[in-house]
Amino acid sequence: MTDTLIRIDLSKPAVEHDNIHNRWHPDIPMVATVNPGDDFIVECMDWTGGQVGNNDGAEDIRDADLTQVHYLSGPIGVKGAEPGDLLVVDILGLGPFPEQTWGFNGIFARENGGGFLTDHFPEARKSIWDFHGITTRSRHLPGVEFTGLMHPGLIGCLPSRELLDEWNRREQGLIDSDPQRVPPLANPPYGDTAHMGRMNGDNATRAAAEGARTVPPREHGGNCDIKDLTQGSRVFFPVYVKEGGLSVGDLHFSQGDGEITFCGAIEMAGWVHMRVNLIKDGMRLYSVKNPIFQPSVMQPRYQNHLIFEGISVDESGRQHYLDTNVAYRQACLNAIEYLKNFGYSGAQAYSILGTAPVQGHISGIVDIPNACATLWLPTEIFDFDIQPQASGPQPSIQPGDLPKAAWRG
Amino acid sequence: MTDTLIRIDLSKPAVEHDNIHNRWHPDIPMVATVNPGDDFIVECMDWTGGQVGNNDGAEDIRDADLTQVHYLSGPIGVKGAEPGDLLVVDILGLGPFPEQTWGFNGIFARENGGGFLTDHFPEARKSIWDFHGITTRSRHLPGVEFTGLMHPGLIGCLPSRELLDEWNRREQGLIDSDPQRVPPLANPPYGDTAHMGRMNGDNATRAAAEGARTVPPREHGGNCDIKDLTQGSRVFFPVYVKEGGLSVGDLHFSQGDGEITFCGAIEMAGWVHMRVNLIKDGMRLYSVKNPIFQPSVMQPRYQNHLIFEGISVDESGRQHYLDTNVAYRQACLNAIEYLKNFGYSGAQAYSILGTAPVQGHISGIVDIPNACATLWLPTEIFDFDIQPQASGPQPSIQPGDLPKAAWRG
Amino acid sequence: MTDTLIRIDLSKPAVEHDNIHNRWHPDIPMVATVNPGDDFIVECMDWTGGQVGNNDGAEDIRDADLTQVHYLSGPIGVKGAEPGDLLVVDILGLGPFPEQTWGFNGIFARENGGGFLTDHFPEARKSIWDFHGITTRSRHLPGVEFTGLMHPGLIGCLPSRELLDEWNRREQGLIDSDPQRVPPLANPPYGDTAHMGRMNGDNATRAAAEGARTVPPREHGGNCDIKDLTQGSRVFFPVYVKEGGLSVGDLHFSQGDGEITFCGAIEMAGWVHMRVNLIKDGMRLYSVKNPIFQPSVMQPRYQNHLIFEGISVDESGRQHYLDTNVAYRQACLNAIEYLKNFGYSGAQAYSILGTAPVQGHISGIVDIPNACATLWLPTEIFDFDIQPQASGPQPSIQPGDLPKAAWRG
Amino acid sequence: MTDTLIRIDLSKPAVEHDNIHNRWHPDIPMVATVNPGDDFIVECMDWTGGQVGNNDGAEDIRDADLTQVHYLSGPIGVKGAEPGDLLVVDILGLGPFPEQTWGFNGIFARENGGGFLTDHFPEARKSIWDFHGITTRSRHLPGVEFTGLMHPGLIGCLPSRELLDEWNRREQGLIDSDPQRVPPLANPPYGDTAHMGRMNGDNATRAAAEGARTVPPREHGGNCDIKDLTQGSRVFFPVYVKEGGLSVGDLHFSQGDGEITFCGAIEMAGWVHMRVNLIKDGMRLYSVKNPIFQPSVMQPRYQNHLIFEGISVDESGRQHYLDTNVAYRQACLNAIEYLKNFGYSGAQAYSILGTAPVQGHISGIVDIPNACATLWLPTEIFDFDIQPQASGPQPSIQPGDLPKAAWRG
Repeated sequence: MTDTLIRIDLSKPAVEHDNIHNRWHPDIPMVATVNPGDDFIVECMDWTGGQVGNNDGAEDIRDADLTQVHYLSGPIGVKGAEPGDLLVVDILGLGPFPEQTWGFNGIFARENGGGFLTDHFPEARKSIWDFHGITTRSRHLPGVEFTGLMHPGLIGCLPSRELLDEWNRREQGLIDSDPQRVPPLANPPYGDTAHMGRMNGDNATRAAAEGARTVPPREHGGNCDIKDLTQGSRVFFPVYVKEGGLSVGDLHFSQGDGEITFCGAIEMAGWVHMRVNLIKDGMRLYSVKNPIFQPSVMQPRYQNHLIFEGISVDESGRQHYLDTNVAYRQACLNAIEYLKNFGYSGAQAYSILGTAPVQGHISGIVDIPNACATLWLPTEIFDFDIQPQASGPQPSIQPGDLPKAAWRG
Repeated sequence: MTDTLIRIDLSKPAVEHDNIHNRWHPDIPMVATVNPGDDFIVECMDWTGGQVGNNDGAEDIRDADLTQVHYLSGPIGVKGAEPGDLLVVDILGLGPFPEQTWGFNGIFARENGGGFLTDHFPEARKSIWDFHGITTRSRHLPGVEFTGLMHPGLIGCLPSRELLDEWNRREQGLIDSDPQRVPPLANPPYGDTAHMGRMNGDNATRAAAEGARTVPPREHGGNCDIKDLTQGSRVFFPVYVKEGGLSVGDLHFSQGDGEITFCGAIEMAGWVHMRVNLIKDGMRLYSVKNPIFQPSVMQPRYQNHLIFEGISVDESGRQHYLDTNVAYRQACLNAIEYLKNFGYSGAQAYSILGTAPVQGHISGIVDIPNACATLWLPTEIFDFDIQPQASGPQPSIQPGDLPKAAWRG
Repeated sequence: MTDTLIRIDLSKPAVEHDNIHNRWHPDIPMVATVNPGDDFIVECMDWTGGQVGNNDGAEDIRDADLTQVHYLSGPIGVKGAEPGDLLVVDILGLGPFPEQTWGFNGIFARENGGGFLTDHFPEARKSIWDFHGITTRSRHLPGVEFTGLMHPGLIGCLPSRELLDEWNRREQGLIDSDPQRVPPLANPPYGDTAHMGRMNGDNATRAAAEGARTVPPREHGGNCDIKDLTQGSRVFFPVYVKEGGLSVGDLHFSQGDGEITFCGAIEMAGWVHMRVNLIKDGMRLYSVKNPIFQPSVMQPRYQNHLIFEGISVDESGRQHYLDTNVAYRQACLNAIEYLKNFGYSGAQAYSILGTAPVQGHISGIVDIPNACATLWLPTEIFDFDIQPQASGPQPSIQPGDLPKAAWRG
Repeated sequence: MTDTLIRIDLSKPAVEHDNIHNRWHPDIPMVATVNPGDDFIVECMDWTGGQVGNNDGAEDIRDADLTQVHYLSGPIGVKGAEPGDLLVVDILGLGPFPEQTWGFNGIFARENGGGFLTDHFPEARKSIWDFHGITTRSRHLPGVEFTGLMHPGLIGCLPSRELLDEWNRREQGLIDSDPQRVPPLANPPYGDTAHMGRMNGDNATRAAAEGARTVPPREHGGNCDIKDLTQGSRVFFPVYVKEGGLSVGDLHFSQGDGEITFCGAIEMAGWVHMRVNLIKDGMRLYSVKNPIFQPSVMQPRYQNHLIFEGISVDESGRQHYLDTNVAYRQACLNAIEYLKNFGYSGAQAYSILGTAPVQGHISGIVDIPNACATLWLPTEIFDFDIQPQASGPQPSIQPGDLPKAAWRG
């Protein structure tokens, strides 16, 4: 029987767990230590630490305290790991807790984080997804069902002191370039809601004041939100501190490339089963700066897609220079407009793109001045046929299908 | 026996063919007309019209006249097609000519077009690829072989007068923002090397002076360089002029997502077998602005990948705000550094990323301030094992394997 | 939280569970009733009811009492189900118990059941497989690891009285054609070890004397041992009695096509999560005699295979007429001989073919007199390269790797 | 430009080509010789040598002279190949001739060869398939379209004298066991219609009288009819005579596992592009008796299947002992009955199973007394939805859709 190294009590607040932390800092003490070759289980809260409920309103999304996120389980030390090594992590299994087989997806309001299309969808929305084994449906998004490619949205090792300093310096530089922006350009350290695991006293206060926020992905991996990091995949993480300090959280039942609604995945609490190994001096041997990984042999075989193109001319007709963000935004908007023909509201379509196993490809990036990005929408996830026909679209989602509270307007 | 509507004589210059053109303009006369439901074959020159030879130097890449490109076969009229329709195009087959079973890939010099990593690889390079049925190898890139996902890099319908005007206006606006830049931000119309098909006299001169260049992808599709548009796929193109006017060219034997070396694909001359149909009023019915498409059931099953991450912090350590281009550039650079451990030069690794069926995913695009992009490198295309091992990489490409002329330095 | 309708106590003998049975009979009482649309969890013993231990000997395989098998959980009634309906069963999830993450594979001795190659491997052997999340390794079969396509080997509805009678009649007819054969041609009812669930008294005794053994697959499905019936798949079962009476068991972590060692799969105890629905009158509407099913979208992407052919000429050189069994036997033997070049014993190779996700195809069945069958062996499951090379095979398994007890001789 | 070693003139009879033969014999002279590492093109007649026309009758199938088949192109010698070597053949490309883009499928009459279900479909039928690039449709089988997995049905090296003698001895032994059977149990040598390539005079007459017929697959491969041997695959063939003597023919546009209608594939004339290499002494090094092969990375991604089970109880209710042929026959019949609900005639459904990329799996072969075989029918090849619905099947093929001549009755 595999050891569960970190246990979570969902009935208690996240901050009452000392095996959880919500900032990156080299001095956070290990909560467990393992040997290379070991496999073990880690339990995780959802990324918000339980701020979001299984109901039909979006108030909790609107009012979520984003300074708290993400609650991560760890850090776990690996004996013998030293800076410069690669920590090999096999994701052996991952799932929700049997007693909480649902997750949530949110569109964050512009005032509270926003999202990739926040100019088009500035208000908070929430969909609840019920898990039926490996598949899921939402009462807020009728007509769609898919198999989850469950994965940790956030995983990585503790930064070194030097790396932390560099993160803080470069991100503060960006903030300083437009300090009043809403949403902000980046999030600086914020001690008030920092939870530093087993640190306490002055040490904790000091570290909290400089601990890096967990939102962005960085050199160590972190919040990469890579939808394919599912059970069966293997990741090679850079090690920056003695024993590595592996932390994990932000479990997703499913997500589309880009996680475009910000809380774009189907977020859940749950467990991860992992095995660790080391490649000594691996960063140098393989010239590794960011993590590299290998996908799982086990994947959903969604093979039939409808593919939407976008180019780097924005909604107002303005020409941008090889800008993939603008191009992908157009591809997303094109897909949303397309789906509205079947009866979905724009916000619903937006949420489908965030949650379903949608692929976002950088298709052409050298043909000046237009980048071309493509959004691959699997057609098999819909209960009805969404492919173009000479007879035109048959609207399948009726206005009455839209739940009032969260999807009004 | 399927009709070949457009025949090419490879021994003659492109401009001596009146069934070829190299600018987009609504008035270019149709060179053939077909009925909905018809299938037919179209022959195409390579995109440069034969400027590049099967040899070991890169001079022809360095000196290529890019004002001439791309030479497209067409336009073909479809009876009954009207503005607002969708033209359904099935790519039924595609291949090189039996008498010319090779293609080329080029890194363009910074002074002549550049590429995605032109700051790192500013000089011209060329690799020649020999086709062996559906697979290819290059004497300039030892140790790698793959199956081609052959596709047209450039395909679409003629723009309307209004659309052409909008293209010219918005692209000139961008050029005007930094008119001295090298490479330029965009390419304005250029009459000197325009080839307007069957137009002639003053009409041709006038149209040449305003015909849109073929380099960027635009609303009509055009130079999308989508590596997955292979035989078996179906595209839905917006129609802007009476009878549509479908043109095609820039055939690729294979390409990676992004076509990052600019002439990133393996370029070839060859033929396309297509079938056309119409969805009347389809642009309105399905809210279509850019083409949409469905991939082929026939695809290479490269399933084992090594995946490289990049975030939007650039090579100098500067923080960018959710910039996918920067993130994908880092992922590419990370992959190149990785491959150098096996003996490749940087330019060779860059060329592999341009030509092989590499995927580029927009993985995370909302976690401020870092976008996360991933580059998926299929491991099965290498003759040797490139996966990370505890024993470190085993260099497999020897310096002696590098051909002198094109890959020196 | 999904209801667990049937709970198992692994510390108690199978026969002390009244929600388990080991014979097919129309009168076995339902142990639970559900509505169409419900999903629920069912726990299952391993097929032998715990006769086999996690150790290095094969004595328990040699001495297993096969008159007891298979212990099935159920039957479960579905409200409204009537004879002639199709019961739609979605396999939503499936796994081992967290406290027992191992399984076993056995080669049965010729005297006790035998197997597909019992003439070549007449003695009992056993391998123990440790589960690491979705992957497994065995200390008895070094050098091989794969991802499990977990599935129920045995599932189906209770037969009607008429169907039961037909089963008993036709199978007894076969037995009568060679009653002394070892192993026997079929297994007749056998009351002594019958466990009839909640039946008791004379009813149970009578039913036990005529209850069909669970070994063969039959019209209702039953012991089909289809390796692809994994989570995410959907089965349409014929209904023969009121409320259907769905029973399930014989869970496998993985199996090759054919389950050739008899106890060919990796056998385990565990749980199944299912959802049921009805197609009223479906047997007539769709002309269904045997179950039909749809595979999962979630499958291991083993794409690289080495494929062995066999024809219907047997080991002694004797010609058979279009006999697929002989042809598949040759394909299996060819694969075994091939694997021995890498250091495996024949019995080990035989066990790999039974447990790994090997495909067995009926390739040609009309070219008199030779049937052609193919065995598809995924090459990615081996720690070393098994593909043919000009330099010949590199033996990777050393004699010292073979555990003594179970694999001697 | 790749050399075409063997050219065919479709306007001339097969027997007027001296680079074609229709029997296996060690003394047939090589028609060309190549070096290891060479690639080359070989043209092939259809298997019957042009006996079947593109029309709506089945008379040519009914009256086809099967003593002539199969017309093979070759043999080709490989320098340095010796008995005991493995000849490595890469299938680099394969296709129909541009001037003959159609093929045929036939149900052979019981009196003339029969087929897997000849008891149910005793009369001759023919369907003509038009190729549209890589896809095909038939005017005789409405409602179905698929992508071809083109392959040679028949390929292999010349047998040695000893091997030929063994073939003749064992097959004659089988014929002798029931010499009057219709169809016969096997086909003995038959000199009258033998075409021995470049042999002539008494040598040819003698060899013709003992040359093995090409119908069955044998140790050397031969008529294996493996649907997956498509472009991109690699085969390792045993070598029995000096220089090997590779011959190939019986090209198929597509075929289902089992080729069940006998002329089950879509038969065509065309060309094969191959590359050859040697593994010296490979038969011993890898214990190879029959060819082994590796499938292509390029395959149709038909992932959605409807799977039909069959067990070894025959149509009359008779119990057979672990007989996979009976089981697969039931699975085929179950699929045919299913498809009839959508409007197809039984013979049409039978032809679909023969031609489409249907998989036939040996699922369970040890659960006495019933073998279990499964037939995997890709659902995406149909123009309409064939999946089971609560509302029942919607017949989509109308009786008027059935062409008279070939599909009457």
